[in-house]
Amino acid sequence: MEKPLILVTNDDGITAPGIRNLVSFMNEIGDVIVVAPNSPQSGKGHAITINATLTYEEINLEGPQTDYALSGTPVDCVKFALDKVLTRKPDIVVSGINHGANSSINVIYSGTMSAAVEAGVEGLQAIGFSLLDFSWDADFTQAKEYIQAIVKKVLDNPLPKGVVLNVNIPKLAKEEIKGVKVCKQAHAKWEESFDERVNPHGKKYYWLSGYFNNMDKSEDADETALAEGYISIVPVKFDLTAHEYLKELDTIMKF
Amino acid sequence: MEKPLILVTNDDGITAPGIRNLVSFMNEIGDVIVVAPNSPQSGKGHAITINATLTYEEINLEGPQTDYALSGTPVDCVKFALDKVLTRKPDIVVSGINHGANSSINVIYSGTMSAAVEAGVEGLQAIGFSLLDFSWDADFTQAKEYIQAIVKKVLDNPLPKGVVLNVNIPKLAKEEIKGVKVCKQAHAKWEESFDERVNPHGKKYYWLSGYFNNMDKSEDADETALAEGYISIVPVKFDLTAHEYLKELDTIMKF
Repeated sequence: MEKPLILVTNDDGITAPGIRNLVSFMNEIGDVIVVAPNSPQSGKGHAITINATLTYEEINLEGPQTDYALSGTPVDCVKFALDKVLTRKPDIVVSGINHGANSSINVIYSGTMSAAVEAGVEGLQAIGFSLLDFSWDADFTQAKEYIQAIVKKVLDNPLPKGVVLNVNIPKLAKEEIKGVKVCKQAHAKWEESFDERVNPHGKKYYWLSGYFNNMDKSEDADETALAEGYISIVPVKFDLTAHEYLKELDTIMKF
Repeated sequence: MEKPLILVTNDDGITAPGIRNLVSFMNEIGDVIVVAPNSPQSGKGHAITINATLTYEEINLEGPQTDYALSGTPVDCVKFALDKVLTRKPDIVVSGINHGANSSINVIYSGTMSAAVEAGVEGLQAIGFSLLDFSWDADFTQAKEYIQAIVKKVLDNPLPKGVVLNVNIPKLAKEEIKGVKVCKQAHAKWEESFDERVNPHGKKYYWLSGYFNNMDKSEDADETALAEGYISIVPVKFDLTAHEYLKELDTIMKF
């Protein structure tokens, strides 16, 4: 049987430890092509590059895969890979491993997850992986078996059209991870508090800052599962229609 | 009765004709504060500025409103306005009028809609408006009465938590607009075709290009309504969980 073709991307940049670990895990499952940003793209959400041009080059990194560094966003990487790099549709697109959580509302800010969503829009199987550890020296190997098993499960049991997976991994040693839980996106938000500074010329400038406020303690929310030591898996869709509100809105919007 | 406080933002930049028209329409309804990007931010999706700093300044533009230009993305504008500019929560946040469509899948790439979604995450009433005309000289006045009426309807009938509106306006003369239709997001995608060029130094570079492929001819889809001459209103949510797939995924992800 032909080995699966796996496209790997991320938002921390092609040389980040998170993606290098993911590539090494995927090399054991299939043929891997990497198309990832040539610079960090955290928090880029579903941004695409419209008013600027893109360049890319093959770079030599350890392993049997082929690596292409693109001067764009994570979503650009998926679009570019499909149009210009790959000669056939990949069997799956995996994004990450992100340095930091993309659970709950973070899914909408995340370049890692937006790459996975874009692959879903393209009709492909896709998973985003994130580790709850921002450190560059984070241990990405502790969840290797789970990550490989989740990818294999999806290859064997394709997701329905319009759905991709958001997988978050707690910052725990391998033996402390309790297992995997399928969850909903927790209701949470960031409470902003911009940090004001003054530059040497006397002008004020600001750093985005704040704290994460989880308002959802329900048992089936991803934040709950992560806090309990589970890997959370949320099925994510990109039909954003609030179908359950269509009828009521229709009565309100009569003119 | 106190006039409603209306925060206005966009993604085409604070001086774009689309937002200037929206501001003038909103000045007739409430007290308006504008916090909008100081440069074009189209296609920025839900991007936020993490690895750079922000500056802002008040600028003088025609009308009774106050205008602040921020050096960030549309989502930054909403976050910054709430934390640093406004002294109380706005009664509604309106974003646009975008120069170009944000119907169907475009909602996920759109800075205009991401600003509205961010306002929703903050627990606010929010609407994004877009005109199906990219031209800088587009006629934004033809839908003035509809835009004002939709804003008033939402002020009088608050949207449920977790829902914002995506309003798209066909490129038609005032008398040709057939009315308003509440719709679902059409199933559609962009078919990429990056445009390859060669720079004066012999290096290849690429422009993102392609065409829009609407695969959804259903009567209740936004693309259908727009093609028929209606203003489309899609209720948009940011709980991306594919709730209908949770149970099946749970059986697949047993280890």
